Order: sequence, then C-alpha cells, then structure tokens
Amino acid sequence: MKKVNFSAGPAILPQEVIKQAAEAIIDYAGTGLSILEVSHRSKEFVATMEKATALVRDLFQLPDNYAVLFLSGGASTQFFMAPMNLLNEDDKAGYISTGSWAKNAIKEAKAFGKINVLASSEEDNFKYIPKNYEIPQNLKYLHLTSNNTIFGTQYHQWPESPVPFVCDMSSDIFSRPVNVSRFDLIYAGAQKNMGPAGVTLVIVKKDILGKVSRYIPTMLKYETHINGESMYNTPPVYAIYVSMLTMQWIKDNGGLEAMAQRNEAKARLIYDEIDRNQLFYGHAVPEDRSQMNVCFRLHDESLEAEFLKRCAEKGLDGLKGHRSVGGFRASIYNAMDLEGIQKLVDLMQDFEKEKA
Amino acid sequence: MKKVNFSAGPAILPQEVIKQAAEAIIDYAGTGLSILEVSHRSKEFVATMEKATALVRDLFQLPDNYAVLFLSGGASTQFFMAPMNLLNEDDKAGYISTGSWAKNAIKEAKAFGKINVLASSEEDNFKYIPKNYEIPQNLKYLHLTSNNTIFGTQYHQWPESPVPFVCDMSSDIFSRPVNVSRFDLIYAGAQKNMGPAGVTLVIVKKDILGKVSRYIPTMLKYETHINGESMYNTPPVYAIYVSMLTMQWIKDNGGLEAMAQRNEAKARLIYDEIDRNQLFYGHAVPEDRSQMNVCFRLHDESLEAEFLKRCAEKGLDGLKGHRSVGGFRASIYNAMDLEGIQKLVDLMQDFEKEKA
Repeated sequence: MKKVNFSAGPAILPQEVIKQAAEAIIDYAGTGLSILEVSHRSKEFVATMEKATALVRDLFQLPDNYAVLFLSGGASTQFFMAPMNLLNEDDKAGYISTGSWAKNAIKEAKAFGKINVLASSEEDNFKYIPKNYEIPQNLKYLHLTSNNTIFGTQYHQWPESPVPFVCDMSSDIFSRPVNVSRFDLIYAGAQKNMGPAGVTLVIVKKDILGKVSRYIPTMLKYETHINGESMYNTPPVYAIYVSMLTMQWIKDNGGLEAMAQRNEAKARLIYDEIDRNQLFYGHAVPEDRSQMNVCFRLHDESLEAEFLKRCAEKGLDGLKGHRSVGGFRASIYNAMDLEGIQKLVDLMQDFEKEKA
Repeated sequence: MKKVNFSAGPAILPQEVIKQAAEAIIDYAGTGLSILEVSHRSKEFVATMEKATALVRDLFQLPDNYAVLFLSGGASTQFFMAPMNLLNEDDKAGYISTGSWAKNAIKEAKAFGKINVLASSEEDNFKYIPKNYEIPQNLKYLHLTSNNTIFGTQYHQWPESPVPFVCDMSSDIFSRPVNVSRFDLIYAGAQKNMGPAGVTLVIVKKDILGKVSRYIPTMLKYETHINGESMYNTPPVYAIYVSMLTMQWIKDNGGLEAMAQRNEAKARLIYDEIDRNQLFYGHAVPEDRSQMNVCFRLHDESLEAEFLKRCAEKGLDGLKGHRSVGGFRASIYNAMDLEGIQKLVDLMQDFEKEKA
C-alpha cells in the first residue's frame, strides 16, 4: 500500500526528487562516485551549489543586494545567530509570539539585546495571529514566524514594518510568492518544502550586517559564509543537493505562483471538510489558518485513537497532532497532492457516517 | 572504469554502505517512505539514532560517564563550542599547532580564554608532530589535532597530559583503537571515516561540563544535546543514518583493531613506494607519517601535471595535493582497499621507468 505522508517535518518530498536523490547516491553527475563521497570542492558539487543558489534567486526574484546561504544547525541556530549578528546589547528588537518556535526565538534573542514582545496569542493557545499592534520606530528589527507548524496558523498578510524585518519561514518557504524586498533576513530549516533535514536556508540583505560590536565566532558570522559562498567549511553536501532538486521541481511545476494556487486548493479541500463534518473542528481561527499544517480535533475526544487507527489502515501517515494542541495535524506541504488529501477527506466522511 | 577515490574529504565510503544508503532513499526500514521524508521522532529513526549511539559506545568501549552526541556545524563549530563550554575568560588552555585546522582551533579559542600555544611545527611547514614540550598543570585542558589532513602527519603516541584532554579526531576517528578514558572531549566531522558531510560526532566526559559562568546559547551547550539525546532540534537524519551504516560496517569487519591493521598495511604499501621510487619523496617526517593522508611530491615539479593526468586516466581520483603542501595527497581512509593503493603504486613505478 502506498503511504500518504502527512508528517510535519521532516516531511513529504516529490517522488521525482526522491528518485533522482537515490540515483546520485550510486552515481553523482556522471562522476562514477557517490555524492556521499565526492569533495565539496569538486567541479560537480560547486556546480550544484551554484545551481541551488541560482534557484533561490530565481524563484524569489531576489535583488542583487541579498545573499543566499546554505548553513547548518537548523532554525534553532538562527534563533541566536540572527540577534547575535544584528543587535548590540542596548538595542531593542520586537518579536511577535505566535507559537512554540516564536517563543524559542524570543528566549534565545534575550541574551543579545532588549527584546520587546509586541503581541502574543499565547493566552488563547496560539489560535490566531495577532494584528493591530504598534511597531516602535526605534527597534533594530521586527521578528515574525510566518507559519506556526504546531498550531496551524499562518500570516496571510505581513504587517507594515517601519523597521528591518526578520522572518523564520521554516515551515512555509517556497509555498507561495514572497516579496523578499520587504524583508532583511529570512531563514528556514529545509525539512518541510525545501529538502531533507540538515541544511538551513538564509536570505540576507547584505547592508544590515557588520554593525554590531560584540565578538562573533567565525562560523556564526553571516559574512563568513557570504565570503565563503556557503563553503567556508565542508557544507552538508547531500542535503544541499536534494534541496536543489526540490527547488528545480518547484520551478518545473510553475514556480511559487503555481505552488500557491495548488496549496490554496489543497487547503480548501480539507478545511471545507473540517467545517462541514459534524465530528471535527479546526484549532485555528479561519482567517489565520495555515495552508501547510491543518490542526483539527474531534468534538468527542474518546474517538481519537480509533480515527488514528483508521488513518493508519488506509496508509495515511503522520497525522497525530502535537501534544500542545492534541487531535490531528495534516501537514500538506508542496509535495502533497490533492489525491492524498482526498483520501483523508473520504475517511473523515466515512467516519462521520459510521458514528452518526 | 571504476574510480578509486583518494579524496581528502568528503571521502570514500564502503560500497556496501553506499548500496544500503541508496535503498533507504527509496524505502527506509520497511516504512514505505524515503528516509529523506520521515519524522526524526518516528520509531524507525529513533531506533537508528539509538543504534548509531550504541555503535560508538561499542567500538570505543566507552565508559558510562561519557556521552555520545551527533551534532551539526562540523569541527569548525567545535573549534569555538569546546572553549565556550570549558573555559572561563581567565582560564588557560594549551594548544599544539600542527596544521591549518589546529591553527583555526587556536584562533577561535582565543575569544574565550587565555590560549597558550605550547608547541608548533609551523616553521617547518608542519612536517612533524612536536614532542617534549611542557604541559603546565594549571591549564583547563590540552587541545590536539590527532591527524593533520593537509600536511599528512598523525599522532602515533599521545602526550601524557596532567590536565583534561580535548582532541579533534576529524580525519582519523574509527581508523584505530583509542583509549577514550584518556580523553575528556573528542570531536570529529563525519566526512572521512564515519559518513557523509553534515554530522559531527562529539564524545564528552559529562563531569567536565557546567563549570563556566558565561551565557551559552541553548544550541551551543553540550548539555542541551545530552538531555535531548541529539534530538533537541531536528537532527541531520540522513547523515546520521549513513554514519550508523558505516560504523556497522566497521564492526562487521572486525572493529577498530582490524581497521588499524588494514590501515597500517595500506600505509606501508604506499610509503614504501614513495621511499623506494627515485622520482618521489614524502612531505612528513617518517615517524609522524599519517596512515590516513599520504602527502608526497615529485623531485621534478615540472612533471606534476603529467602525473596527475596519468592518475586521471587510470581512474585514480582526488590526488591533487593541498596548495599548502603542493604535489599529491592520497587519502586512504578505512574504506580504501589495498587494491586501490596498488593501482597508484603501479602507476608510480611505471612513471619512474618511463622517466628513467
């Protein structure tokens, strides 16, 4: 039975990408060697790195004053690396608290400057994205988490920021067009829409760097990796290769506009069923619902285990909700197709009929 | 033509490992999913992580008071993470300067304490491993680089250290038995004997931690990853999986004693030819020669390009020496067999006959 992978991350990748990714393990770019054992300085891998960088530039139509970096350490490393590179001790930054990852970003940033939490939806278990807060002009930057994997909320409109704008896009990057010129720093762990775990994308406006006075270890300075073209040290070769393949797949399938259209249609299919079905309800408020992570529950919680068992029987995998929300979470990243979601919707309908 | 991979890193891996590594891209552990898209919290990957940890413990016969961590960021991250976790600002540490990587370790450590370079072979282009230096008792630790990839030298005997002992074993870990109880912290980028680029092994004696007063970001504290069992955040799943396969291969092939015997025999074959052949000479002094990276040159440098061309024609790949030494470098890690080295030796002999 073919499985449908609803995992929140590491997450579903396109079948075409997986096929090419397996081929390169045996013979990479006609070298006769596995990609796992080639030098990162080989002309073949330098070409892969250049292609990966060019694809990010192409998909986002990046202006020249932005650098593209492939780093390691995940978004959890960016939580401290961003303030370490952007904030002096007495500088202020504003953060919006929209979930567990936003809270971690806030916690790590506090060691490097004065952090103002401008708005939070924590008192309502992060069911919504706060709006209509003031963004003081004296902040060095504003930090947002664009999509909240655990709580299933997503920004559908960016705040007008009078200050530089830093955004953790780990769980919705490449799912829709983004006007990057509104941002100063974007970071994203790869393991949702971009590729396998083990690489982190950073897009940074170069002129915001070099303005803090603290000592920064070489590996933690963005400039090190800009100057080294993401090869200051040995990069995570294979994770970058598979990310390149995935970005090529996005491009071949119409780019970010096409991804956004597909993702809207997919999200509509499952949210319409959640709203129609008598048994289920959604966690997030409708206007802030995520198109990547759909968090939903059963009114009768005692049926949860049974529904999950039925999902497993149908090959619908990874649907157990995060303990912070409970219930179910369907992660429906770029590589998920409508057919996969339809199987889940069919099961929800069957389940409703049975329990009626 | 089958290539022989003499690359310094990322480097040759066993063919059996590559085959299993490719299979898991298509179907991981019978899940019906690619390992690139499974959750790191899945029971299958938790089992892989546990097995990888157990293999490190087993191969090194690790005492219980040592933790095994799989991190990201490479040895270049350990260069600052080790002193950040072990040194207060006024504490002293001793470093031995045996090559480019040792120098980088020294440079990064200087931000976190008082660094004494106890000995250096830099004035002689790092041809030897310094010996007979004094190790002051008041040091917090002594730091060594066990094998110098660029210069082809290696410690064959550890100094008697009266202070805690920190060692970068990136390029010879798993190549020979190590009495870990003599060390307090060992770190190694995977991309030589352990696996593909993208994961870093850390073996740490737990009681040396928690003694510094500076603030350390969560991701940079060893304790975070001890408590999180290397899963505080999403780990580099695939690089850990392939490392596990490689360690299993080492175990199946007799463990570290057997690796050491094979590696001694392989090194003897190539060094004997370098010493015998009228055209070539070695870079390192004989007593400190590396069994992993064999650096050698032609007396007549004008023949270098021709020799490299002949190597390429025979499928002998990755032999160009690092610019700091010039000439050639044959990296002959665990997965290299005698047959591969014999091909290089045969070519050296043919080349000598031609040029006689």
